[in-house]
Amino acid sequence: MDKPHAELLAVARGDRPADILLRGGRVVDVFSGTINHEDVAIHGTRIAGVGHGYDADHIVDLDGAYIAPGLIDAHVHVESSMVTPPEFARAVVPRGTTTVVSDPHEIANVHGLTGIHYMLDASDGLPLTIFVMASSCVPATHMGTAGADLDAAALQTLLGHPRVRGLAEVMNFPGAIGGDEAVRAKIDAFSGRIIDGHAPGVTGRQLNAYVVAGPTSDHECVSPEEALERIRRGMWVFFREATNAQNLNALIPALSNDTRRRICLCTDDRQPSDLLRAGGIDAMVRRLIEAGTQPIHALQLATLNPAEYFRLTDRGGVAPGRRADLMILDDLETLQIREVYAGGACVARDGLPLWTPPPTVSPPPPSMSVDLKELSLVIPAREGPARVIRTIPDQIRTEAESTMPTIRDGSVVADPGRDLLKIVVVERHRGTGNVGHGLVSGVGLERGAIAGTVAHDHHNIIAIGADDVSLKAAIARVVELKGGLVATDGKDILAEMPLPVGGLMSSEPIESAEAQLTALLQATARLGSPLHDPFMTMAFTGLEVIPALKITDRGLVNVDDFTLVEMWGAEEPAAG
Amino acid sequence: MDKPHAELLAVARGDRPADILLRGGRVVDVFSGTINHEDVAIHGTRIAGVGHGYDADHIVDLDGAYIAPGLIDAHVHVESSMVTPPEFARAVVPRGTTTVVSDPHEIANVHGLTGIHYMLDASDGLPLTIFVMASSCVPATHMGTAGADLDAAALQTLLGHPRVRGLAEVMNFPGAIGGDEAVRAKIDAFSGRIIDGHAPGVTGRQLNAYVVAGPTSDHECVSPEEALERIRRGMWVFFREATNAQNLNALIPALSNDTRRRICLCTDDRQPSDLLRAGGIDAMVRRLIEAGTQPIHALQLATLNPAEYFRLTDRGGVAPGRRADLMILDDLETLQIREVYAGGACVARDGLPLWTPPPTVSPPPPSMSVDLKELSLVIPAREGPARVIRTIPDQIRTEAESTMPTIRDGSVVADPGRDLLKIVVVERHRGTGNVGHGLVSGVGLERGAIAGTVAHDHHNIIAIGADDVSLKAAIARVVELKGGLVATDGKDILAEMPLPVGGLMSSEPIESAEAQLTALLQATARLGSPLHDPFMTMAFTGLEVIPALKITDRGLVNVDDFTLVEMWGAEEPAAG
Repeated sequence: MDKPHAELLAVARGDRPADILLRGGRVVDVFSGTINHEDVAIHGTRIAGVGHGYDADHIVDLDGAYIAPGLIDAHVHVESSMVTPPEFARAVVPRGTTTVVSDPHEIANVHGLTGIHYMLDASDGLPLTIFVMASSCVPATHMGTAGADLDAAALQTLLGHPRVRGLAEVMNFPGAIGGDEAVRAKIDAFSGRIIDGHAPGVTGRQLNAYVVAGPTSDHECVSPEEALERIRRGMWVFFREATNAQNLNALIPALSNDTRRRICLCTDDRQPSDLLRAGGIDAMVRRLIEAGTQPIHALQLATLNPAEYFRLTDRGGVAPGRRADLMILDDLETLQIREVYAGGACVARDGLPLWTPPPTVSPPPPSMSVDLKELSLVIPAREGPARVIRTIPDQIRTEAESTMPTIRDGSVVADPGRDLLKIVVVERHRGTGNVGHGLVSGVGLERGAIAGTVAHDHHNIIAIGADDVSLKAAIARVVELKGGLVATDGKDILAEMPLPVGGLMSSEPIESAEAQLTALLQATARLGSPLHDPFMTMAFTGLEVIPALKITDRGLVNVDDFTLVEMWGAEEPAAG
Repeated sequence: MDKPHAELLAVARGDRPADILLRGGRVVDVFSGTINHEDVAIHGTRIAGVGHGYDADHIVDLDGAYIAPGLIDAHVHVESSMVTPPEFARAVVPRGTTTVVSDPHEIANVHGLTGIHYMLDASDGLPLTIFVMASSCVPATHMGTAGADLDAAALQTLLGHPRVRGLAEVMNFPGAIGGDEAVRAKIDAFSGRIIDGHAPGVTGRQLNAYVVAGPTSDHECVSPEEALERIRRGMWVFFREATNAQNLNALIPALSNDTRRRICLCTDDRQPSDLLRAGGIDAMVRRLIEAGTQPIHALQLATLNPAEYFRLTDRGGVAPGRRADLMILDDLETLQIREVYAGGACVARDGLPLWTPPPTVSPPPPSMSVDLKELSLVIPAREGPARVIRTIPDQIRTEAESTMPTIRDGSVVADPGRDLLKIVVVERHRGTGNVGHGLVSGVGLERGAIAGTVAHDHHNIIAIGADDVSLKAAIARVVELKGGLVATDGKDILAEMPLPVGGLMSSEPIESAEAQLTALLQATARLGSPLHDPFMTMAFTGLEVIPALKITDRGLVNVDDFTLVEMWGAEEPAAG
């Protein structure tokens, strides 16, 4: 609990005892890059003093353990954890993360401002501080139907919230570079705040223009050259290690004594099993140390640097007046975390959370308006070759293929033997009845179907199947659950994961959520898919801002020229 | 001139020519610590792009010269240059400084908010951006009479000005540490802004408390240990090289690869001849390079670092979207400056300013309310030893001595043969008639007197003399000038420097101001003073927040316990 300022000052001066004294530890000082034998006096939520000569009501003998600042995740979509903020905190706080800067654009695409406020409210009172960047690209484009449309005026209403730091990743980089007025209005609305970027592959003069437009960071780098070019143009670079986009190893060569101050770490999107088993930012710090980075330098990327970038002057280092968000480490090289303090309280020990969760916040009512009776999965046959979405294992981009589809009774059918499955997107937010149809390869189901409401970024119902019966059953069950993931084989439901919060997040503990997801993946393996996670592959097949061929409720999207295209009319397939 | 954003974007993309293209140069990139063969496209006041492939209306061939960001002075009292902002700019801009963060607390002590607004208005339209930190300590204390008293409410009125960045050096460190409510109110009024510090010699738990109170920088370090302790407590440290406080060499050992990002450079107080001959921030960068710092690292301390600390995201490096404030350097090791660009225009070449000065802004009417007929310099004799202010060459601190004064006709008289001069402070702002009397040693005038309205921080009339006739003549001339510095010998005026702007600044060009000051110093040399600048020594003899014995219009001040003391009643002088 916050204590009066005068009391904190008195403790700092040594005129009254602190609440807690961490004694006999070694302070990992990210400001000076040194490790110092000093005590840390904590009072209320804050560090009152660092040094010697303090007394306290409660003395903790650290016996040489390290005291490091709590970790900060510079960019994360909490929704990708598939659990609510309190459960996300249960996963990351015991691993040392005490602050995340989140972009709630998944739920914002479903529930608009209501969704963002839900994320803010549901993260109130947690030991994890969840900052929010106002989602700049809701919807991602108008080539699909989302549940909300947030313009500059809507986003501006968020500015008064103390945990809203700025504008989230400006993914519409063509709009930013081209001077699109709606993009400009959003950036202007957050003038003087932090503007995060997202500019995959943008380079040269295009990158200069993107920087001129306003974004000051990018987390989409995949090569050291890309990272260095951004740093040289004045941007900050966030190294990312997401479940579906693991860029850390590739980017390590960009990290030097000179560039280090402009680099942060982020997880972007991490699924439950990754969070529970591999970890998050902690795992990235460990990886950097293994790769030869000095521990204190690796920690700077996840403490002082994001604090400076996001102007979080109340955290990021072990210093007087800052929040007592701390890791107590038995070993620095392996980042072995004994305890985690957040806001002055010991909130985790030996990897286990110690706090009492705050009361559950009710999520918005489900966004699920689908008339199953009207739903048709039929793709009438036409002449010539068709466009097919080719998915690529562990990537979110796809390729555009051309093939002669398999026709039966005048309709296109899935043909697992040819690695051709049917993919559909069913609009769920506005009752439009829109259904996008197409073919997909690379997912590898031999039979059955999968369906779900996690479909970036519009989060309509997306389904992939080897036959229409399985597809219909899967979609029907998703509708019945009012959001979730389902695997079917014919009419049989093989496994399911209800996602009542926005169709994106479970209301269960993260361990149960992970078990449900594991069961689903076992089911898809039984159905013949060789993919580690066909649900994730499916979810990004709906994201029409990542090349090359994607699908929304309005149909196929050629991302290279940002247009809706017919399934028919593809170029002739190459011979052979 | 600023160009429309859409136009700047188009230039960045390469869709229209830039105004100016700096071609064939080497960009000194302070973000990545690298030097790169790249062109810089300037449009309006901004850098549109860095790299290749740009065209422009005007192409400047740099032939391998370096392009570095303009220098930033992190803390300066412009008034100490003894000239107005346009003349200060004429001195510093040709030497590469394009931005200063100033604390106008000299003129604020004379004219209050009117004085601060004068400094803002008089710096409008210059090629030098003069940011202002709201002066937190006006008056320095109430043990003297200043022309103004700025409380939190008054300071808060400055917040809306686009060039006001935060709260200036919180010099009342005992108040900050002790929780003084007026200090607290000022810091709270600037919550979320930058709060500069000033904590000479503060260490340990006292320093922790000072940091808890809010200030985030300090420019008063004199040793590397002090600097490192501040950095470890989360503060930023400004290395200072003022005319009267030269700390740079002593602090260089605190500069390392790890601490570098938390260090800036500042000049604090520099007199005209220093600015014209030695230079300012440019001289500090050169000194660092001579001492072995890599040029690009030395430059970071005066470019990227202060830009980050003061959140000046529009400058500090050569990158798209930032202000085209640039130095063109023939040589990096010696910082040989060929040209300076400010806001996109070439404003200096080969050390000479090229811009047309903006129209002169009228200063506030003089603050000079002294009734000379009522002025008495008589110090009635009493029994026993007296306190004497002992000045120390080239330092602003003094020592308290005790001596039996020379008495003639029942009054204390100056006795140059014993190195005892009379010192008086005559209140000038409010017509109180207050006169503080005392004795001073170490100034060394053998005859004559000096007087002036530069007397930190209250800036009353201060005078030191060997006889009352000279003293009276000097004070009378200062009153007649309505502010200035004067040297007299009996009734003869030997030299003078009118300072019509607040009694602090000349209205002349800086070269004339320097010539006048030089003539004054030649006069004091003829009068027998061995000091390089007795006016500066005198000016700080009035600053009652620097130990040990000082003088204000209310009398002598024992700074060690912050109390007014009688001249009489000193301890018995030591024998011998």
